[in-house]
Amino acid sequence: MSRFLDPRYAALEEYVPGEQPKEGTFVKLNTNENPYPPSPKVKAALNAAEIDRLNLYPSVTGGELIGKLAKRCRVREENLFLVNGSDDALNFAFMAFGGDGVAFPDVTYGFYKVFADLYGIRKEIVPLREDFTIDPLDYAGLGKMIVIANPNAPTGLALRRSDVERIIASNPDHVVLIDEAYVDFGAESCIPLIWTYPNLLVVQTFSKYRSLAGMRLGFAVGSPELIADLNKLRFSTNPYNLDRLALLAGAAAAEDEDYYLDRKEEIVYTRKKTILRLQELGFTCTNTKTNFIFAETDRMEGEELYKRLKQAGVLVRHFSDPRITNFLRITVGTPEQMETFLAALRRILDQEAEG
Amino acid sequence: MSRFLDPRYAALEEYVPGEQPKEGTFVKLNTNENPYPPSPKVKAALNAAEIDRLNLYPSVTGGELIGKLAKRCRVREENLFLVNGSDDALNFAFMAFGGDGVAFPDVTYGFYKVFADLYGIRKEIVPLREDFTIDPLDYAGLGKMIVIANPNAPTGLALRRSDVERIIASNPDHVVLIDEAYVDFGAESCIPLIWTYPNLLVVQTFSKYRSLAGMRLGFAVGSPELIADLNKLRFSTNPYNLDRLALLAGAAAAEDEDYYLDRKEEIVYTRKKTILRLQELGFTCTNTKTNFIFAETDRMEGEELYKRLKQAGVLVRHFSDPRITNFLRITVGTPEQMETFLAALRRILDQEAEG
Repeated sequence: MSRFLDPRYAALEEYVPGEQPKEGTFVKLNTNENPYPPSPKVKAALNAAEIDRLNLYPSVTGGELIGKLAKRCRVREENLFLVNGSDDALNFAFMAFGGDGVAFPDVTYGFYKVFADLYGIRKEIVPLREDFTIDPLDYAGLGKMIVIANPNAPTGLALRRSDVERIIASNPDHVVLIDEAYVDFGAESCIPLIWTYPNLLVVQTFSKYRSLAGMRLGFAVGSPELIADLNKLRFSTNPYNLDRLALLAGAAAAEDEDYYLDRKEEIVYTRKKTILRLQELGFTCTNTKTNFIFAETDRMEGEELYKRLKQAGVLVRHFSDPRITNFLRITVGTPEQMETFLAALRRILDQEAEG
Repeated sequence: MSRFLDPRYAALEEYVPGEQPKEGTFVKLNTNENPYPPSPKVKAALNAAEIDRLNLYPSVTGGELIGKLAKRCRVREENLFLVNGSDDALNFAFMAFGGDGVAFPDVTYGFYKVFADLYGIRKEIVPLREDFTIDPLDYAGLGKMIVIANPNAPTGLALRRSDVERIIASNPDHVVLIDEAYVDFGAESCIPLIWTYPNLLVVQTFSKYRSLAGMRLGFAVGSPELIADLNKLRFSTNPYNLDRLALLAGAAAAEDEDYYLDRKEEIVYTRKKTILRLQELGFTCTNTKTNFIFAETDRMEGEELYKRLKQAGVLVRHFSDPRITNFLRITVGTPEQMETFLAALRRILDQEAEG
């Protein structure tokens, strides 16, 4: 760090995103991207006439996207906060609502810790149960902001909406943030609960289900008062946070549910098939409700397996956290990508067995 | 505000961007957009194949853009910090370097005050001279971060590089941020000074000269240490802050200097011509080095003139700050847009004279 940096950030450890090798050099199953392109309607929306208008500022209120997304989510525009990727919504929420501290699971999205440290927010780290499930009772009346990824990452496990509701209901004086980045692959969204709980903030993204990780688009859903607070901070940092093409791409994607439901079906089918094959190879997999698989085996240590797969041209994600260090997080790609992954895995384990 | 918002933000007043009416309803000369479309190379870069790859995350290190921009700016990649519009760079810089307070002119970009208030940074507001020029001696050894827009907005006036250098040299223990959003329309950039002054941070944008306001792309230039500090904060908030299309558009724009130099010539010529016409109508204009004109007349009060122009379908910007409340800030549009503006202005002033 330079001698000019505010000393409050001296000890801050930034978030480390998944590796990004040169495109095309790996079968890339490490950042939970959707393997399918966005809806063809996105391509139609990002046309030459729109590119010629890029000299003009974007809408600061969400353009056509906000109305279409409100319809899709069955909420009103005043319930929606649009951001440059869902990390952006998490950032604003920690800043706005973390004053009394924040609680989240020990095994979860690694960015929560970084946001808390960035803003000097006290952290209460709540261990998952032995089987990686969340016990809602652990979060009853904690007297601080609560952040739960549902489904959780990297475990892939989901809470029922009724269980999440118990957490929200028991913390009426603090914001409960439910990070639903992966919800569309098989879990229950808590969006319908916003009408009952003014302290609920649901965060979703266009990066996974809607195949727009490259476009940076996320949103939060909550009471108009929470959304107004978040917009106050947005207008005090970067009002034009979404570019014109992101707004257009999002609007087109929000209108093509048929396309995305079909892609989801394919991903869920590939997930199921891959898990069966992994089990045949001696892996244990969690009951994932996401577009990734969380798996371990006693045939080889997680880190070693990660390294050998990388040597074989397949990139998956490995975490050094002791509770999950034997696991791999494997994005569900196309059937072809999963065949390549499984073939590499089989070779590695066979070589080891022959050792 | 909700009862959940951190009370530190209770009194915060967010930035108010220029009005954004429905497109096509006004001759829009109020947000200093470039009236010309981006380079044709931008259109070629944002092609169908790239849109099909939007399911993949963007580069977190700037992709092809950072190398091309480094070449264009004659710096190294480690001297560049890429952001989602230059406001984003300002935001990170206030957060990182404002700990000892911040000084800036009384009449300048309205967002500086908002960033300071957001982070609870003490402000020293330094009055411009009577003629709206900046006296470099006012900023000698202030013992805090200094932020100067050069050229300044909304006055349009520029400091010589040698004058800016005196400010930078006299504050070696604090960051001096030079906001060069409008520099390409006729002022001297301070980028060459980064080799001498490790406390210098220069902020520029693709929104004005490069016709990409709709794409959200800005950057800061400085010593590798300052850039590393800013990246630490970026990786602790939103590492994927630039989408794939913004990176591609920026790379294409950075390579087409010929196109942009030609457009600049047109804008500078239109500016000169419009100022002459305004002077004939009884206006006083500052010696602007930007793509906007700052003008007043004793024939009608600024606010009244702004309102009448709006009624006539021409949107310009008016500020309520008492020192400049008689002025209008008028973006330099196409020759046709300026004809419409001048015709409306003439009608309004003639009616008033007859009235």
